Order: sequence, then structure tokens, then C-alpha cells
Amino acid sequence: MPDPTILEFFPSPSATPFVIEHVHEEFTSLCPKTGHPDFGTITVRYEPGAQCVELKSLKLYFQSFRNEGIFYEAVTNTIRDQLAQRMSPRWMQVITDWKGRGGFRSRIVATHGSVPEAFIRA
Amino acid sequence: MPDPTILEFFPSPSATPFVIEHVHEEFTSLCPKTGHPDFGTITVRYEPGAQCVELKSLKLYFQSFRNEGIFYEAVTNTIRDQLAQRMSPRWMQVITDWKGRGGFRSRIVATHGSVPEAFIRA
Amino acid sequence: MPDPTILEFFPSPSATPFVIEHVHEEFTSLCPKTGHPDFGTITVRYEPGAQCVELKSLKLYFQSFRNEGIFYEAVTNTIRDQLAQRMSPRWMQVITDWKGRGGFRSRIVATHGSVPEAFIRA
Amino acid sequence: MPDPTILEFFPSPSATPFVIEHVHEEFTSLCPKTGHPDFGTITVRYEPGAQCVELKSLKLYFQSFRNEGIFYEAVTNTIRDQLAQRMSPRWMQVITDWKGRGGFRSRIVATHGSVPEAFIRA
Amino acid sequence: MPDPTILEFFPSPSATPFVIEHVHEEFTSLCPKTGHPDFGTITVRYEPGAQCVELKSLKLYFQSFRNEGIFYEAVTNTIRDQLAQRMSPRWMQVITDWKGRGGFRSRIVATHGSVPEAFIRA
Amino acid sequence: MPDPTILEFFPSPSATPFVIEHVHEEFTSLCPKTGHPDFGTITVRYEPGAQCVELKSLKLYFQSFRNEGIFYEAVTNTIRDQLAQRMSPRWMQVITDWKGRGGFRSRIVATHGSVPEAFIRA
Amino acid sequence: MPDPTILEFFPSPSATPFVIEHVHEEFTSLCPKTGHPDFGTITVRYEPGAQCVELKSLKLYFQSFRNEGIFYEAVTNTIRDQLAQRMSPRWMQVITDWKGRGGFRSRIVATHGSVPEAFIRA
Amino acid sequence: MPDPTILEFFPSPSATPFVIEHVHEEFTSLCPKTGHPDFGTITVRYEPGAQCVELKSLKLYFQSFRNEGIFYEAVTNTIRDQLAQRMSPRWMQVITDWKGRGGFRSRIVATHGSVPEAFIRA
Amino acid sequence: MPDPTILEFFPSPSATPFVIEHVHEEFTSLCPKTGHPDFGTITVRYEPGAQCVELKSLKLYFQSFRNEGIFYEAVTNTIRDQLAQRMSPRWMQVITDWKGRGGFRSRIVATHGSVPEAFIRA
Amino acid sequence: MPDPTILEFFPSPSATPFVIEHVHEEFTSLCPKTGHPDFGTITVRYEPGAQCVELKSLKLYFQSFRNEGIFYEAVTNTIRDQLAQRMSPRWMQVITDWKGRGGFRSRIVATHGSVPEAFIRA
Repeated sequence: MPDPTILEFFPSPSATPFVIEHVHEEFTSLCPKTGHPDFGTITVRYEPGAQCVELKSLKLYFQSFRNEGIFYEAVTNTIRDQLAQRMSPRWMQVITDWKGRGGFRSRIVATHGSVPEAFIRA
Repeated sequence: MPDPTILEFFPSPSATPFVIEHVHEEFTSLCPKTGHPDFGTITVRYEPGAQCVELKSLKLYFQSFRNEGIFYEAVTNTIRDQLAQRMSPRWMQVITDWKGRGGFRSRIVATHGSVPEAFIRA
Repeated sequence: MPDPTILEFFPSPSATPFVIEHVHEEFTSLCPKTGHPDFGTITVRYEPGAQCVELKSLKLYFQSFRNEGIFYEAVTNTIRDQLAQRMSPRWMQVITDWKGRGGFRSRIVATHGSVPEAFIRA
Repeated sequence: MPDPTILEFFPSPSATPFVIEHVHEEFTSLCPKTGHPDFGTITVRYEPGAQCVELKSLKLYFQSFRNEGIFYEAVTNTIRDQLAQRMSPRWMQVITDWKGRGGFRSRIVATHGSVPEAFIRA
Repeated sequence: MPDPTILEFFPSPSATPFVIEHVHEEFTSLCPKTGHPDFGTITVRYEPGAQCVELKSLKLYFQSFRNEGIFYEAVTNTIRDQLAQRMSPRWMQVITDWKGRGGFRSRIVATHGSVPEAFIRA
Repeated sequence: MPDPTILEFFPSPSATPFVIEHVHEEFTSLCPKTGHPDFGTITVRYEPGAQCVELKSLKLYFQSFRNEGIFYEAVTNTIRDQLAQRMSPRWMQVITDWKGRGGFRSRIVATHGSVPEAFIRA
Repeated sequence: MPDPTILEFFPSPSATPFVIEHVHEEFTSLCPKTGHPDFGTITVRYEPGAQCVELKSLKLYFQSFRNEGIFYEAVTNTIRDQLAQRMSPRWMQVITDWKGRGGFRSRIVATHGSVPEAFIRA
Repeated sequence: MPDPTILEFFPSPSATPFVIEHVHEEFTSLCPKTGHPDFGTITVRYEPGAQCVELKSLKLYFQSFRNEGIFYEAVTNTIRDQLAQRMSPRWMQVITDWKGRGGFRSRIVATHGSVPEAFIRA
Repeated sequence: MPDPTILEFFPSPSATPFVIEHVHEEFTSLCPKTGHPDFGTITVRYEPGAQCVELKSLKLYFQSFRNEGIFYEAVTNTIRDQLAQRMSPRWMQVITDWKGRGGFRSRIVATHGSVPEAFIRA
Repeated sequence: MPDPTILEFFPSPSATPFVIEHVHEEFTSLCPKTGHPDFGTITVRYEPGAQCVELKSLKLYFQSFRNEGIFYEAVTNTIRDQLAQRMSPRWMQVITDWKGRGGFRSRIVATHGSVPEAFIRA
């Protein structure tokens, strides 16, 4: 199971608000209906509160989905919820982009808190 | 005839608002005037209410237009109307992009409900 | 002379507002100063009122500029005026993009009515 | 010296507001410190008042910077000031994009008057 | 250590507000955990107050990070703070884009002062 | 069934050898196993003998595959055989490129006669 | 009618063999069947004998096809024949690339003399 | 373990030589040293003998590497050997392209039999 | 006048044959007929004999064409002749690519000595 | 100093000839004349003899150039010589591509042994 306890955090280096975006292009999980692998890109954008997520732990956390059967929408909302709960960002967006399956590309956008208009990725 | 009863739905996995976009690059129907095939990309963007559309059923629904004689504008409005009626999204956009015919590319954008400014695809 | 009577129209298929964009990449007219040909892309974006412009007639209308000596700005404003007068859209934008001449590319944007902020092409 | 008297103008062909953009990809001047050539792209965007700038004269005006020693910022502000003074646009933006020097690309954006939010190039 | 005293400034050539953007595509520092090199692109956007930063000195300042062990977030906030303190811009954004490490690309956006909505890079 | 009698030909306009390539980006047929549509690009390259294929008839011939259940390899070899038989080119290549299905893209290359080394598309 | 007497030539500046390629992206003629305009790119590659074609005269020659009804193959072979006859190159290739019509792109390659293997454009 | 018995074959539909290329962009295995996932694109090009590989079985065969610890070079040679043994192509190339790891991209090219010069992918 | 005495050379660092290519994207000279500036990219490819050209001196040499009125063909042959004479490469190619003038792009390729087939840029 | 003893090797996994290409996009060294950093991409292509180079050791070897003052040509020939000596490939190419300095991009190609025509990168 995806395991949020893998995630590590470090104190934000600045009290002045700033924005962090990590784009992971090597996400893979399994389709719960067919068992076939899904491939996606996960983007995490946030304005840190007291803490920032450590990059290597984020990678291991994403790798823990490798053999999970889980839908696109659930991946996106799970990541949003687990990251938000662990590090309490001022705001956060999790955007997942999925490679073509049956002629479709899909994007799911989940939001935590109030994203300033100019920073929304739609 | 395009058959909306093909469409299947599943309960939205999150009460927190989020956005779903499906892009289908393999849409084809027939021009009602000439009988020649039209080729387009269909984008469906929406914020789910209680339900989300299931991807494979959406594909079959789109395939049911394959031998229909129907104009660009009617394709777009039909999909918007049938999807909106079946799943009652908080808002939805259907955007169709059509390959060149006679030196023209065309895009049709149909909207259901009130799309937040930052999420409008224009 | 460009002849707007070539244009044909059909009733809008939906009372719900929607947006139509036609991009014509094969426009050519003549420079009135030098007689050399100009090449451009014409984009027509609009929210239909009661009527939509028929695509083949729009193509023939654009072809009627082929041997006209006319400036970029006049092409743009003429198309905007003649289309707006004939089909009374709720709003319309005509955008012309001209290939390089003397190291320049040019774009002219003419507007009819009040375009919603999110739909402006600038 | 850059010579604004080269510039020629013609009456705006429409009383209805519209926007003109000219992009010149072949601008070159000299760095006043090193004497080495600089290469840039100059974009002029404006809503005409009574007059529009004639394209060939704009080209000659830009060519008059060829052997001038002048900084990026001064090129941009000079063009903005001289064009604005000569043709009194309702608003204008001059944007200069400079090729890499020492691993840098640079962009300077100078504005005249009040540019509508949707038309700002940033 | 990164040395802000390397930075040189020149008086802004115009009292009319304008915007300057410098993009440096050859930034490198060291990861403080692994010692491996990081590679990034640094974008500095600002509206000058009384002074502008001189480009060659900015290059030398960026080169002074070459053998520093420093995190992405600290690079970004350090540059923002040191530049803002030295030249008091009306507003400034520092945006850093980092090449893939472990399948990730990252972007950090730090802001000084109040950036007009239309000029925010997100 | 794909019907080669649709094809029309016209006499080659030159006795000097030359090469013709037609690329059709709107080919669609059905997968004989699943019934799902396949989408591909068909390239026909040849050096004409006495005759050239007429473009509109080639389009109608390709459209006659629309509702056929037929594999990629059979599409390619059928087109090669039927075209070669009808117009006796000096040499011909038929190249089919198929959109992704299950994470795969495919290309099939069938040849008729002896293609000069420099003209082979591989 | 396309008029090869428009073409002007100048003596080749070097006795050492070299290659010249001119790519004209603004060619237009008319389809002799439908009367609709065709748009193409014409590439002329050659190794000069005693003479080179002057660029402005080549442009005027190409413009003389503007209102001619003529097929792709005939355009290509006509240009090859008229240029070869007028300037006797050591070898020459004329390559025409035509924009999409009915879902097709087309390329015609006509050759004069013996093109060295490494210089063939296929 | 990668299991070549999953592979299925069908008789080649033509006695005339032709070439088949399948590109799979969703290959993943594990690094045997670190346990981290590798991501690659596998290209199989071949001229069939009596048999062709069935696409869905090829996909399942590739998926059987998902949780294998195996080096790039071994993946490539294993696929070449197992495919060549099972279907005896006239010639075959297996090309693997691997996403960046530590700032590297890698390509491995393994060949079976004698590939005609013009068909080699290098 | 272009001044080849500006060019400096350094001894080739290896007796084993190797190839050097320098691409200069900021070349400008003047059209001798119209006086308007031309802009091009100059590529110099060669296998050194005893000497290599020093990069900064090559830049200054290219800058010495800035205010020369000289045709494309003459620029190319002059650079080939002056470089070949000064450094006696085993072989050399000079390739010039010129930006659009009147809807044309042009490339001139001049060769010195015998270029191995695989190294020819055509 | 660049230290070839860092390099590690592993036995080639196949007696059948095959080709390996590693592309490192994060190479940096120092210009020996100016002390400014150079940035390049290093491509190593080879057919292994008994041994293959281990990827992580190759990365550390490349990182050992970070603070070396060394010319492009010397980097290329040094890597070719040290790799060839340590692992005795059947053939090898080292290709270095250098980012723009003073408006130039450069490529150096050094070869060891006899590269089959079809595998040469030029």
C-alpha cells in the first residue's frame, strides 16, 4: 500500500512565501480493473507552511504505488490528502497526467486550500 | 445513433472539489453534406458532482458516432448535453478540435454551468 | 472585390451559449503598394447569435481576396465588419497572422462586441 | 543615431478599436562596452489612435540601430518613447528579446499608456 | 560562498516603469547531501527602482555558486534576498528550474514585493 | 471490401524519372479481433511508369477500408499489391504508421520492385 | 502562363563545385479540376555550371504560376525543365511539398542529371 | 522471470519481403544494483520469415519484466535472443532507449542476422 | 573587407583523425544590390591537419563581414577559400543557411578536399 | 585531473555484436583561457569487446573534469583515448556538443577503430 510514513520533511528555509513545484515523470501503478500498468506524470505544487517535502522520500513514496491497483482519480486524491496532512502547506495542487489508454489522455487536478488565482494550474 | 445509455458512471472518490479532463484524439464521424469522414479531438473537462464518467464507456460512446452524419457544432453540443444530463457535474466544458478540411481547422467550445475563471479553456 | 454575399449561414444548433473558432491557414491577397502576394492565417472566433457561418462559404469568401490589393489592417477590419453585419454574433474576434515580409511577422486583432475576459485571444 | 524621422504613418482604417503587433526578428545593434554585436527580436504591440506606423519605414528605423553602441534597456525605452511620441497610440508595448550572451537570454518590456489586462504580454 | 558584493548596478535608464527578465541557462551548484552537481536555469524578473543589475556581474555572481553545497530552495531564496537587498526593485521574481534528478524536475518561485497580476510567472 | 476499381489513373506527365509521395493522415479501419477502430497514416511513394494515381480516387479507395476488420500487415500488403497491379510503377513503397494501442506504435513497410538506395524510407 | 524568360542568371562565383538550395515557402497555383488554390513549398537544389539563378527573378517566376490551373506533377516537371534548360546545372533537384488537401500531403521530386548519392533529397 | 512462452505468432500475410516495427514506450524493469525502476522504450524491427509476433502477446511479454532486476544490456540481448529463437525472422533489430538516470540517456542496439544497409537503425 | 589575417590557429591536439564543427548563428552582412542586411548561420566542419582555428578569432573574422555588401554565394566561397588556405585541413565543408528574404530560405554548401561519404552535410 | 582509474567495467553480456550509446547532458569543465565554465553533452557510442563501461563510474569520471581548465578538442580526445585504452572496444565514437559561447555552438567527433558506415554519427 502507498505508505505516507516514507515521506520526510525539512523546515522551510524562508519565512517569505514562495512556491515549490516537483514534476515526477516516472509514475506507474496498475489499473484495478485490468491489471495492466498505467503510466503518468505527477506534479506537486505548493506554498510551504513550516515544512517542505524532501525530494528523495517523495520519490520513494511515489514508487510505493508501483504494484497497487488504483484508479487515476484515487491516486490524485490520495497524494493530495496524504501530503497535505503530513506537511500542512498554505496551499497545494496535485496534477496527474496519464498516458494514452484506448486513445485517451487524462488529467486530474486536486487542490488543497486556497490557491492564488495566478498560481492555479488548470 | 449516438447512444448515451452506453455511458457508465462511478461515485466520485472525494468530496473535496477536483477537476477531471479526458482528451480523446481518435474521434471520427461523417460530414452530413458530403458523407466524407471528419476527424477530431474531443476534450471533456469537468468538476464532478456525485459521479464520474467511466473511461471505457466514454470511449464506446464516442465510437458510436463513427458512422453518423453530424456537424461539428452538433457533435459538441450533443456530447455536452448528454454527459451533463447523465452525471450532473458542477461544471463542464466540451471542446472539439477538428482537423483541416479545405484549409480550415476548427474548434468548438460548449460549456455547462459556471466554470471558474482560472479553469476555462478558451 | 471581396464579396460578402458569398457567405451562407445556418441556424445555431443550441440556445446555450457556445464558442466557434475557424482557423484558415491558406489566405492570400496582394500588397497594394508592391503588388507582391501576402500570405496569412485568418482566425475567426465568435459566440453565435441566431446564426453560424457555413464553412465552405467562408472559404470561398476568403478566396475572393486572392487578387485584391489590400493592406493587413484593412483585410482584418473588412472581415470583421462584413461577418458581424451578416450574422450578428454575440461577440466576435478576427485575428490575422501574416508571414514574414522584410524580417517582420505581423498580427492584427479586431473585435466586435464584448468578449468575455477568458475568451480574448491577444 | 537612431532616427525617428524615418518613421512614416498612415491613418487608422477603423474607428473601432483594434490591436496591431509587429515582430521584427532581425534586430542588431552593438554592445557599448565591448563593441560586439547584439541580436534581438523587437515586438511592437499597440492600439492605434489616429495613426498606424508604416511597416517598411519601421524596418528602416530599426536598421538605423545597426552600428549604434546601445544597451538593451536603452534600445527598448528609446523605441517606446520615439514611437509613442510620433503616433500617439491609445496604448503600446515594446518587448525586446535578446539572444544568449554569456549564457543569458534577456527580455525587456516597456509600456506606454494603460494596456487592458487581457492584452498585456509579460 | 556566493558573494553578492560581486554584483554591480547601473542607474535605470527610464523613470517610466518597465520590466527586465534575465534567464541564465548555465547555473550549477552541488547537492549538499550527495556532493553531486545540480544543473538549473535561473530566471530573474523585476521592475527596477533606481537601479538595474549589470549582466556580466550577475553572471559572475551566479558562477560563485559552482562549488557550493546548497539546496534548490536555498539557492532561490538566497538570490532573491541578496538581489532585492542590493538593488531595491519595485518587485522581483526569482524562478529556478532544475534538471531531472531521480526522475524529477523541480521549479522554485520566490517573490519580492507586489507583482502585478499580469506579470506573475507561476 | 476495399475496392481497387475505385482507383483512377492519369498518364505520367514526364518521361524523365521522378518520384511521387502521397501521405494520408486520416486512415481508419477496424481491428478484426476486437472490433475497435485503428487509426493510421498511409504513405505511398513511387516512381511512375506510364501512369500516376489520381489523388481523389486514392482518397476514396482508402475510405473504403473504414468499416473493414483487417490487420495492420494486411492493410499494408493489400494496398501495395492492389496499387502495383493497377498502375505498374517502376518501384513503390507503402508505409503505414499506426497510432498507439496498448502502449505501442507500429510501422509496416512494404516494397514493390527495386527502390534506389537513396529513396528507401526505412 | 509561367514565363521562364523572367529568370535572370549571374556567373557562378567559383570554379570549385558547390551546391545551392533555395526553398520558397509561398508558392500557390490553382487546381485545374476544381479551380481551388493549391499551396506548396518549392525547393530547388543544384550544383551550378557556368551560371546561378538570381533570387528575385526566381521569385517572380514562381509568382507567375499564381493564377495557372496546373497539377502538382506538372508544376514540378515544368520548373525542373525550364530551369535546367536556361542554366545548364551540373545536376539539379526540384522538390515540391503540397499542403493537405482532403487529408493528403504530397511531395514530388524531379531530378536533372546525375545527383551525387550524398546530395539526393528523397 | 521474463517468459517467452507468452509470445504468440501468426503466419506472415505475404511472401513478398516487408518490414515490421513495433515501438513500445511503456517498458519498465528494476535496476539490479539499486532496486530503483528503470523506464525505457523498446523498438523491435524485423523482416518476418514464416511468422509475425502478435502485438498483445508482445505487450504481455514486455510487462513480464516489470519486477525483474536486470541491466539495460541484458534486457536488450534477452529480447533479441528470445524473439529470434521463437520466430526466426530474416533479420531483426532490438533497440532500447532509456530515460535519464544520473544525467544519462542510454541506447542499446542488438542485431540478429544481416540487416540491409538502408534498414539499419543506428 | 573580410580580413583573414584576424584568424588565429593552434596545433591540433591529436594525430588521430577527428572532426570539428563550429556553428555560428549570428552572421550578418549586407545585400550588395539593396543595401539591406542579410542574416545567416555559418557552419564550418573540418578534419584538422596540423592546425585548428581558434574560436574567438573565427568570431572576429565573421564579424568583419558586418558592413560588407556581398552575395550569399560569395560569402560561402570566400570563407571556404580563406580558411582552407590558412589552415590546410584534410577536408572542410562550409555551409551557410540564410533567413527568409521574399519568401525564400537559402543554403549554400562549399567543400574543400575529399569529404568522407558519411561526414557530408548536404 | 580527469582520473580514468575511476572507471569500472563489467563483462559484455553477449558474444553477438551489439552497440551501446550513453549520452551525458550535464558535462561541465572550465575554459583554460578565460576560466569561465563550459557546458556540453558527451555521447559515447561503442561496440564492446570483452567489457562494457559501468554507468555510475562513467558519471564520476565525467564529473572529475568539473574544475579542469581544458579545451573542447582536448576533452574529446582525452575521453576517447582513456576509454579506448581501458576497455578495448571493437570501435568507439566520442561526440561532444558544446553550448553557445559568443554566438557559436560546437561539435567535436573523435573515433577509435573502424566504425561501420551505418553506425557513424557525423
